[in-house]
Amino acid sequence: MKNPSAVLHAPHDLRIEDRPIPTPAPGQVLVEVRATGICGSDVHYYDHGRIGDFVVREPMVIGHESAGTIVAVGDGVDPGRVGELVALEPGVPCRRCEQCRAGRYNLCPDVRFFATPPIDGSIARFVAIEADFAHRAPEGLSHEQAAMAEPVSVGIWACRKAAVGAGDRVLVTGAGPVGLLAGQVARAVGAAVVTVTDLNAFRVGTARDLGLDGRSAAEPLDAAYDVLLECSGAVPAVAAGLRALAPAGRAVLVGMGADSVPIDVPLVQTKELTVTGTFRYANTYPAALALIASGAVRTEPLVTHRWPLEETEAALTLGRREPDSLKAMVLAPESD
Amino acid sequence: MKNPSAVLHAPHDLRIEDRPIPTPAPGQVLVEVRATGICGSDVHYYDHGRIGDFVVREPMVIGHESAGTIVAVGDGVDPGRVGELVALEPGVPCRRCEQCRAGRYNLCPDVRFFATPPIDGSIARFVAIEADFAHRAPEGLSHEQAAMAEPVSVGIWACRKAAVGAGDRVLVTGAGPVGLLAGQVARAVGAAVVTVTDLNAFRVGTARDLGLDGRSAAEPLDAAYDVLLECSGAVPAVAAGLRALAPAGRAVLVGMGADSVPIDVPLVQTKELTVTGTFRYANTYPAALALIASGAVRTEPLVTHRWPLEETEAALTLGRREPDSLKAMVLAPESD
Amino acid sequence: MKNPSAVLHAPHDLRIEDRPIPTPAPGQVLVEVRATGICGSDVHYYDHGRIGDFVVREPMVIGHESAGTIVAVGDGVDPGRVGELVALEPGVPCRRCEQCRAGRYNLCPDVRFFATPPIDGSIARFVAIEADFAHRAPEGLSHEQAAMAEPVSVGIWACRKAAVGAGDRVLVTGAGPVGLLAGQVARAVGAAVVTVTDLNAFRVGTARDLGLDGRSAAEPLDAAYDVLLECSGAVPAVAAGLRALAPAGRAVLVGMGADSVPIDVPLVQTKELTVTGTFRYANTYPAALALIASGAVRTEPLVTHRWPLEETEAALTLGRREPDSLKAMVLAPESD
Amino acid sequence: MKNPSAVLHAPHDLRIEDRPIPTPAPGQVLVEVRATGICGSDVHYYDHGRIGDFVVREPMVIGHESAGTIVAVGDGVDPGRVGELVALEPGVPCRRCEQCRAGRYNLCPDVRFFATPPIDGSIARFVAIEADFAHRAPEGLSHEQAAMAEPVSVGIWACRKAAVGAGDRVLVTGAGPVGLLAGQVARAVGAAVVTVTDLNAFRVGTARDLGLDGRSAAEPLDAAYDVLLECSGAVPAVAAGLRALAPAGRAVLVGMGADSVPIDVPLVQTKELTVTGTFRYANTYPAALALIASGAVRTEPLVTHRWPLEETEAALTLGRREPDSLKAMVLAPESD
Repeated sequence: MKNPSAVLHAPHDLRIEDRPIPTPAPGQVLVEVRATGICGSDVHYYDHGRIGDFVVREPMVIGHESAGTIVAVGDGVDPGRVGELVALEPGVPCRRCEQCRAGRYNLCPDVRFFATPPIDGSIARFVAIEADFAHRAPEGLSHEQAAMAEPVSVGIWACRKAAVGAGDRVLVTGAGPVGLLAGQVARAVGAAVVTVTDLNAFRVGTARDLGLDGRSAAEPLDAAYDVLLECSGAVPAVAAGLRALAPAGRAVLVGMGADSVPIDVPLVQTKELTVTGTFRYANTYPAALALIASGAVRTEPLVTHRWPLEETEAALTLGRREPDSLKAMVLAPESD
Repeated sequence: MKNPSAVLHAPHDLRIEDRPIPTPAPGQVLVEVRATGICGSDVHYYDHGRIGDFVVREPMVIGHESAGTIVAVGDGVDPGRVGELVALEPGVPCRRCEQCRAGRYNLCPDVRFFATPPIDGSIARFVAIEADFAHRAPEGLSHEQAAMAEPVSVGIWACRKAAVGAGDRVLVTGAGPVGLLAGQVARAVGAAVVTVTDLNAFRVGTARDLGLDGRSAAEPLDAAYDVLLECSGAVPAVAAGLRALAPAGRAVLVGMGADSVPIDVPLVQTKELTVTGTFRYANTYPAALALIASGAVRTEPLVTHRWPLEETEAALTLGRREPDSLKAMVLAPESD
Repeated sequence: MKNPSAVLHAPHDLRIEDRPIPTPAPGQVLVEVRATGICGSDVHYYDHGRIGDFVVREPMVIGHESAGTIVAVGDGVDPGRVGELVALEPGVPCRRCEQCRAGRYNLCPDVRFFATPPIDGSIARFVAIEADFAHRAPEGLSHEQAAMAEPVSVGIWACRKAAVGAGDRVLVTGAGPVGLLAGQVARAVGAAVVTVTDLNAFRVGTARDLGLDGRSAAEPLDAAYDVLLECSGAVPAVAAGLRALAPAGRAVLVGMGADSVPIDVPLVQTKELTVTGTFRYANTYPAALALIASGAVRTEPLVTHRWPLEETEAALTLGRREPDSLKAMVLAPESD
Repeated sequence: MKNPSAVLHAPHDLRIEDRPIPTPAPGQVLVEVRATGICGSDVHYYDHGRIGDFVVREPMVIGHESAGTIVAVGDGVDPGRVGELVALEPGVPCRRCEQCRAGRYNLCPDVRFFATPPIDGSIARFVAIEADFAHRAPEGLSHEQAAMAEPVSVGIWACRKAAVGAGDRVLVTGAGPVGLLAGQVARAVGAAVVTVTDLNAFRVGTARDLGLDGRSAAEPLDAAYDVLLECSGAVPAVAAGLRALAPAGRAVLVGMGADSVPIDVPLVQTKELTVTGTFRYANTYPAALALIASGAVRTEPLVTHRWPLEETEAALTLGRREPDSLKAMVLAPESD
């Protein structure tokens, strides 16, 4: 195959197919993808063929947390970029709407995001992407580390929304990959305490291995936190997390899953809590790559499983087989 | 009587009693109160003898939206202030806790707030208050206008929390005194559109008389608003208001009443809405008085009823007798 | 002439020439320009053929504060926009660089700005511009008012940088068009006091006519201001303005002219003043048009002189002939 | 001596004298001081008897960067605090003025700051201080580390003013104690690059030992920095530092020394740079202690010299004798 690609046809129907190698359009680069992390949204599309209103109606390449090497450039792009190891920011916005002009391009209604129907994703040997969304990785990063810039970006965005700063006490509910990365980012921007809770003992242990204050979600919390980063998507975590906040506390809802959660209005009022949610991220990739490169955020302990592109389906089904897993990574073979 | 005061003994048991004239302590001023607005919380104490955990266990003077004239000063206060027309900011904080030092003195756990048990309120002929919480009114303001600096402060605080700015489209749900003032403040800080909704036609009409875009809460909303100022306390208003927000919209829950409201998490996330609540206000009085003085915020059309101190009970029961009312004002007689 | 245009060939060599009517490219609109204000930068190019590093090397159409009516659209633009009265935001950025993606598109190094060499300006019968930079004017605005959205944007941007809010005391140094508009914007976003100073009595009088606190720049200032909007470009105004600031005051340098000004470091430190400068504006046009439409910012009293396109040179030389002038407007004849 | 104290009588006239042991007033604690760092301002008072308008007219105890142990409490303070190791925040504000109420208590005009005439400082065996300005040190900190919370606070405040965040490129000019601490704080809140420049090779070497990018101030700078923390007080450093900033860069003037510096206005405008200054700090101590406790900010390598209280004069004259020094620490003997 010239461009083997992991194509989702229907729930539980993933096929490795040859797709044409894309030609980079003006302003684009062609990237040989070398590493792609599996996200919960990929698993959800695989299991259900949809996420909310986004329905897989045509076969769609899956995956969006990718890094690779630039192998060709389109018109207007510096040919000197060929050979660069790049992390791919998966959502390219329209650049013209009110949100884009205001710098909130993650809220662009016309964003084209990898593996969000009908846009193809990046578990493929080759993908083309706008040059400014292919971010050069600092010297020394592996493709796998660079691919992790995507979930690290989710953590950075959550910390920015919460304005985490020096001395803050931060509570992270949910010790999946996003929670463990958001917690590390919080520490990297000066948090004095980062408590990470989960019901799964393996995940709590990983939090502790990373030097965070990992705790069972079943234990009561004593401290008064300045910030809640809700990364579990569990309804009870939102209420418990809000109750754990100090006056003027800031809560960011990152985890997906809960459609509706009851909010205790008098609590929000008397403590003047702020509650917001995140949708992807904007302007985070350079910071994400820098935090990984400095070691302030460690991604390796989170990659518990690796497969070649041909076995993408195994990566997508990991979670249901192995609860004590975190991030699965699909690694493409090196080109000749 | 030397210092007639409106004292709440139990639900529906309000008595006009003579209280000793307070001596201003060092740092305090003695104020002859001339106007006090009635707030929903006063009515709630009158009806129920409590608000949540705050229970009237001892007879308590009611009222907290007051203005008057300084008649004496305590040690350390400039005697030149005697004769000043002042608006009384009703909550004096401890000045020492973490919240006070950070400038969030409204969140001080030891704040002493007029007419919040066990602290006496200000429907009395004379009250003593810390000098820096007695704010000089600009030339030309009446006592009644100065007293309105309290609910105007609520509106300013809501607009600050929502960061209302030039060109914003603002939705205010609830056209009671707070909603009508918050809406006027929003316009005074540059909002391009201020829609105010209510089920009560009289209130919608008042909104229109004030030049705001008053509408029945039963009508569907078409616009995409940048800001929601929820001033009704009605559960359905929160959900409808959040749905009316544009991406990156900011919602502030001002109205009390709803204990728990369901929040649509995917909506908050995909639009990255921010939801916060307000608890009183901090550092708003000078701005409130300035907005009233400039005419940018008009308070007179909101004062639909006036009584002397002796008839405070009539003021407290106005709402249940007369749905087409807004703010009741208790006016003390001038001293000789 | 099909497309009469005011073309600057060299200092003091302005010619009205026929230029080809542009064809709107995909994503563009073709606008029949109806009103263009003359800016100090236009005059500077006319007098000197350059501003700093920007040198007029080829004949260049002058002007950038324009409004007109859409007469045709390029591919991808809603044809329903034909007939729209639009204000033209004169700088279209690259949309791809770090600044653009962050929402600071005014700092884009590759911005194409009307009448900044080598980009042609907008004193012409027809110009083409990107559709999203042609902002629909609210109902009832004249072309002249819509053209004033450009200098109003300068004022909005200054007020945003200074975070002007309710109750602020604002000092504006310089009562030219920018100062008079910035002062009105400050009031429109809630400033309690807006003092505008100038040495020219006519300008001070205009400030007063607009309801601002106009004063001679020769008078000493007594108040402590929260904000300084420096709109004169005069070196002494910066120092005097900074001295007039209260603790935590914010100064914005808008006026051009001074290359280097001495800053009193101990003053900046002991009062923790913030000093910043503005370069054009970003995301201001909708707010500017809204403020003009509501009457919160009045532009008519500033337009002291008007000429047809053929007499653009008279407009450019107005200031030197008539010190008691403010904004000159070039009005194009209506098409048949 | 019961309470040996380092008392400055006149320039170069420092005497160790016995002062009465203070009685803690209500709300105060009595602290046995164990470590006090010497600041440039102490040296300046010792050399010149004044700093600007602050003149030593009466004999004054010197020193303000102290930590110690609580040995007694005044009325209203929890007696359980006796025995606590505390860092002393040296400036206690009035708590009542506009600045205090806004949370900017460092700008309080009536602040009482250790060793700022006429207020005595803290190089003494015992000092009394308001309980809320005696900050409990985390478990495991030494008195010396706790004393360093003062200059670390200067660094935190600078980073807050500059809004240093994840991925920022930060330039620190001046590698004295403040520069080295500010640089470490910048890294601790996520800066990707922290370049610290100085003309003194020893200091550049210390920066490198701390893992920062230490460089000679004589070398040209290539990068475009997001933030300048000017900690040298040298006039040329301000201009060079501003030129090294990227668009939207933020500069904070921390270093004292330069009275007036010329600012390149077109540079500030075209890049929209922000320039501010710091005056002490507010609400930083808990964060400072947390950063020291976590090891994110290392203070030990900065303490190059130590003396007992009796030899305070040696500590004050260290800098002129030994250019390759950084922080001198005065250590009081332990009580029996």
